[in-house]
Amino acid sequence: MCRWIAYCGQDIPLENYVTMPQHSLAAQSLSALESTASTNGDGFGLGWYDRHPEPGLYHETRPAWSDENLRYLCRHLHSHLFFAHVRAATGTAVTRQNCHPFACGHWMFMHNGFVGSWNRLRRKVESLIPDALYPSRIGTTDSEAVFLAMMGAGLEVNPLGAAEATLRQICTWVNENGRGEKLRFTSALTDGRDLFAFRFAENDTANSLYYREEGGEVVVVSEPLDQTDTWIPVPANHVLVAKKGRSIEILPFLSAASHRSETERATQIRVVARH
Amino acid sequence: MCRWIAYCGQDIPLENYVTMPQHSLAAQSLSALESTASTNGDGFGLGWYDRHPEPGLYHETRPAWSDENLRYLCRHLHSHLFFAHVRAATGTAVTRQNCHPFACGHWMFMHNGFVGSWNRLRRKVESLIPDALYPSRIGTTDSEAVFLAMMGAGLEVNPLGAAEATLRQICTWVNENGRGEKLRFTSALTDGRDLFAFRFAENDTANSLYYREEGGEVVVVSEPLDQTDTWIPVPANHVLVAKKGRSIEILPFLSAASHRSETERATQIRVVARH
Amino acid sequence: MCRWIAYCGQDIPLENYVTMPQHSLAAQSLSALESTASTNGDGFGLGWYDRHPEPGLYHETRPAWSDENLRYLCRHLHSHLFFAHVRAATGTAVTRQNCHPFACGHWMFMHNGFVGSWNRLRRKVESLIPDALYPSRIGTTDSEAVFLAMMGAGLEVNPLGAAEATLRQICTWVNENGRGEKLRFTSALTDGRDLFAFRFAENDTANSLYYREEGGEVVVVSEPLDQTDTWIPVPANHVLVAKKGRSIEILPFLSAASHRSETERATQIRVVARH
Amino acid sequence: MCRWIAYCGQDIPLENYVTMPQHSLAAQSLSALESTASTNGDGFGLGWYDRHPEPGLYHETRPAWSDENLRYLCRHLHSHLFFAHVRAATGTAVTRQNCHPFACGHWMFMHNGFVGSWNRLRRKVESLIPDALYPSRIGTTDSEAVFLAMMGAGLEVNPLGAAEATLRQICTWVNENGRGEKLRFTSALTDGRDLFAFRFAENDTANSLYYREEGGEVVVVSEPLDQTDTWIPVPANHVLVAKKGRSIEILPFLSAASHRSETERATQIRVVARH
Repeated sequence: MCRWIAYCGQDIPLENYVTMPQHSLAAQSLSALESTASTNGDGFGLGWYDRHPEPGLYHETRPAWSDENLRYLCRHLHSHLFFAHVRAATGTAVTRQNCHPFACGHWMFMHNGFVGSWNRLRRKVESLIPDALYPSRIGTTDSEAVFLAMMGAGLEVNPLGAAEATLRQICTWVNENGRGEKLRFTSALTDGRDLFAFRFAENDTANSLYYREEGGEVVVVSEPLDQTDTWIPVPANHVLVAKKGRSIEILPFLSAASHRSETERATQIRVVARH
Repeated sequence: MCRWIAYCGQDIPLENYVTMPQHSLAAQSLSALESTASTNGDGFGLGWYDRHPEPGLYHETRPAWSDENLRYLCRHLHSHLFFAHVRAATGTAVTRQNCHPFACGHWMFMHNGFVGSWNRLRRKVESLIPDALYPSRIGTTDSEAVFLAMMGAGLEVNPLGAAEATLRQICTWVNENGRGEKLRFTSALTDGRDLFAFRFAENDTANSLYYREEGGEVVVVSEPLDQTDTWIPVPANHVLVAKKGRSIEILPFLSAASHRSETERATQIRVVARH
Repeated sequence: MCRWIAYCGQDIPLENYVTMPQHSLAAQSLSALESTASTNGDGFGLGWYDRHPEPGLYHETRPAWSDENLRYLCRHLHSHLFFAHVRAATGTAVTRQNCHPFACGHWMFMHNGFVGSWNRLRRKVESLIPDALYPSRIGTTDSEAVFLAMMGAGLEVNPLGAAEATLRQICTWVNENGRGEKLRFTSALTDGRDLFAFRFAENDTANSLYYREEGGEVVVVSEPLDQTDTWIPVPANHVLVAKKGRSIEILPFLSAASHRSETERATQIRVVARH
Repeated sequence: MCRWIAYCGQDIPLENYVTMPQHSLAAQSLSALESTASTNGDGFGLGWYDRHPEPGLYHETRPAWSDENLRYLCRHLHSHLFFAHVRAATGTAVTRQNCHPFACGHWMFMHNGFVGSWNRLRRKVESLIPDALYPSRIGTTDSEAVFLAMMGAGLEVNPLGAAEATLRQICTWVNENGRGEKLRFTSALTDGRDLFAFRFAENDTANSLYYREEGGEVVVVSEPLDQTDTWIPVPANHVLVAKKGRSIEILPFLSAASHRSETERATQIRVVARH
């Protein structure tokens, strides 16, 4: 299991969340509290937007806690929308190419979870990646394959629909593969403008996910960065949607409710204040 | 283009060929002479057999010339059959998983060359890898995919036949893909007992390959390790076969002659002395 | 704090202790039990003797738990005397040069502990390194400096005397530097023939150290590799001496008793059976 | 020998000089033209100023040509004053701590050259580093030691004076050490405001150094980034001084002329147009 944070709001230095808080993401790389793996030392990554439509990326195989470059970059890079991720590998190699976040055009994605029986399902999931995007498959993780499959399913046109269609297909395969198999999908996705954060699991407990909205800043995290009561859990099998200039929405994801029409779903929105 | 050496014979320290000669493989990593890329600094690897049927492997993304570990390992590791490879990447990432040699069970393979238009052909070549071996696809190179495809084509039963069948299929795809596309395949293959070294190219000049047989030792190299006249070029579109306890054979590979039966081919064998 | 193991005895593959036991050193890199740092992910190292008087060395900045090379090397390297070390850095950088074990000629050393106020004492300790050995100072750790200082104090002539003289000098400096400062020194030292393992601390609790002697094999470890009752603690402020072809001795180190003559000390030897 | 560039002027993305030009610094890492080492693959570094008085730093042991992070960082980092350096090691290890540029407080330094007989002179040069700055000695290069020695000699008060005093002392030691020994010092220094670029050698040919001043931008380079005639050589044994808001000055450095008073030197200034 990995740990991650996603931020959108004012232009700030990445250090505000990645390296400086008491229980910052860098601190979580050495001692996460709400994860099955307390050590997330199998590489890490940053992805951020500034003047370009495509995000900048920094991937490193060293643990985040001892990387001097990370301290400098988080101090000097400013962004209004960024992801940061520390990795605990679940079977695939520790390479930069397997570090999150992943980018494809102006889209960016990172993940905490896994596709059960990945070795057996890998080929099927990879078959969902369109030929045109297959050169973007530079690593071997389940996460990158799921992201490129979602790209192929139409993230550009309908992000939530593409995510649901892809995950539903993978769920089917996971379930066909054996009763004990599991799918965990706690992830963040953005086109450089809107932010989507998913918390989903099938046949299993969903990995933890929290958010905080304050003064126009939205922060979504695997576990709280401090001991204040400002962190609200994202309910399991829901997706947080933070569209630019609009309030946060928390929508059902891949649950019964999620089969309804967009119109119906709008009425299901749980506003932030209710949490 | 990469540089490599393959050795079989008495049990010797790897340093005899990898780090100590005047123009050792480590020296070639910084200044190769017969390669389009004089610098082969995109990682390197060692693979060696000793008491186990499976080879030991050492892969590193740093250039060979500055790796202190390499000096120690080549001094202290002894082997009767080993491969060493310095890499000049042709489009795929510099990761340990993309460093040669590759191993699968007791087989080992390394390569200098490329499959033209790899981005477009990758999926096709990967489709030749059997499901059971797909988890062994841990990198993204054309070389590893070709090796696993050859495994699937029956290396265990008929090494030369499996190699020819695989390469013939890939040649067809390369040619279909456009007139300018090329295939270069200068590679070494072993099951831990017999050594095969291929020098082949279609629509192009074959990458250089030399060998030396002396006192029961066979050394095959991308370029000579010294300026003596002991190095004999392997002819283009041929394969050197060094079976345990037998003389070296140089056989046609993927040429007209190679379409004949095994019996016929036996009569074609060019003995070492004739070169 | 770090974790380490030292072995002398029959020629065995390193994997027997480094990677295969239930609580192997590689396992301890991710979850040590008797250390203030449960994660020892700041690089690691191997040092081993075979046919050469000087040891082979392998240093890597990655965590031991995810290094594929380590698995292969421990399987294929055999030795009658080897050290292995996983590091939890205490202020100095994560570089290969700061990874243990350190070698100087045919001597080898590794350490778990620290010199309190290292930043202030570094120059003084470095001043103990003879000019001729100063080029061997390739890293910046306290451990390497202490080792080279001991070399300068005459390890070749009188290992225990040189170690005591060096540590006594450093203790004086540490104590001068302030009442709260501490020195911990749990280390292993060898000339390729005899093995010395120290457990010492001043103004502090000595880091854990255990050994096992069985069938001509001596294994010294920071913490037991399994839950059997075969592991005997080395008493604080003592040194284990395993001379080639002789029984283990446990001698006082830097305690009152240690000021006595060699002859007296011989009578102090606690035989293994008494522990 | 290494290659470097230093820039001051408008706020620009680092890629304008580090990765995009035809013969960019990244290109020089693989094939430098005016250097004894055509390959500068022993790590690299970036240092840049933005909103903080202290520079940001990025050091990496991989060759610049294959580092994906470098491409992203140079695209997304903007600065009005930055250094970039690709390294060809001359005897010291390839570690991040040995990669240039080096920073100390708000000062930054990088170097192309060497102190002859460094192994023998290292202790002497290190003795010039004040105790208070010795913890900043995190690597083992001659370059870092010379920089910290210059800091101790008073860079803050009189940059050129401190540089001259330090270099004069080192020259004396180099000359005492033997007739064949050499000192090459082609380096860049800044306090985040003013830029100094030195080209000096004793008993040897000075390493190449060029500059270009255009539209308020000053670029100083080891070798021209393109084949235009806009690049002017810095004369040997001179220093280029680019003070904020003033024209470039080219002053004698460590030559007879440099012994004169500051007032005299002012009259020696060669204005840019004369070159």
